[in-house]
Amino acid sequence: MKTHEQMLEVAIQQAKIGLSEGGVPIGAALFDKNGNLLGAGHNRRVQNDDPATHAETDAFRNAGRQTDYRETILVTTLSPCWYCCGLIRQFKIGTVIIGENETFGVGEDSLRELGVKVIVMHNQECKALLGGFIEKHPEIWNEDIGEVCSSCEA
Amino acid sequence: MKTHEQMLEVAIQQAKIGLSEGGVPIGAALFDKNGNLLGAGHNRRVQNDDPATHAETDAFRNAGRQTDYRETILVTTLSPCWYCCGLIRQFKIGTVIIGENETFGVGEDSLRELGVKVIVMHNQECKALLGGFIEKHPEIWNEDIGEVCSSCEA
Repeated sequence: MKTHEQMLEVAIQQAKIGLSEGGVPIGAALFDKNGNLLGAGHNRRVQNDDPATHAETDAFRNAGRQTDYRETILVTTLSPCWYCCGLIRQFKIGTVIIGENETFGVGEDSLRELGVKVIVMHNQECKALLGGFIEKHPEIWNEDIGEVCSSCEA
Repeated sequence: MKTHEQMLEVAIQQAKIGLSEGGVPIGAALFDKNGNLLGAGHNRRVQNDDPATHAETDAFRNAGRQTDYRETILVTTLSPCWYCCGLIRQFKIGTVIIGENETFGVGEDSLRELGVKVIVMHNQECKALLGGFIEKHPEIWNEDIGEVCSSCEA
């Protein structure tokens, strides 16, 4: 069985791939209960012009069609937005491991209330990767979380 | 300005395309505040082997990158699942027009509580399209909403 750190490392590698493609550096991976990788992915807003593909939904897609997610583990470098929390809720993903929740975090409590096991790693590499991107591209970051930022339009 | 019925018709056409491809017949479309079509799409689980693409997320993707969804109108043949409700919440989509909510419906009230304008059309064609598919393929339908159906395994 992989450790939480080892699983998070797979998501971090995805965030780095995203960054190297010029994209928002958020990565994710879905594992089965034994720690076998089902699928990994990253945010594709910039590189694919695809606003619907967050890291979590990319990993979920790349894991292919599954009939039961209740024992799966979703690992993501950033606390999931409401869109990705909705994915977790609808498909009853059992465990979510979060790299960091200081840059962004909205739905962790609601996931816990639904019975999802939520683990926050407070990983500084995750925070530094995304923080550096947001500093350079605040308008892309705001777009990615649906925030209308008047100061970004300047 | 298009009527609700005219906008729903675009989503229904997408559901029919999905059905003709062998897929789950749920369609959706995103319009701007003036009723101009931004993007349309349909569920792609079967035809693309893509569990992450529900009708609403396909329409959202096909609308391309937008910076402000607050006045957009999302039309869908079926009441949105938690995943798609999360999309609506995160990106602050202002209005949701729903073909029918008898086959499935979980999040309409929570959307209303968030200030989303929700309109249900009680359209029988939407219900018949999906109902016919579910009768033939209950296992695919359950997979699409994350329901583990032991009786489907027989």
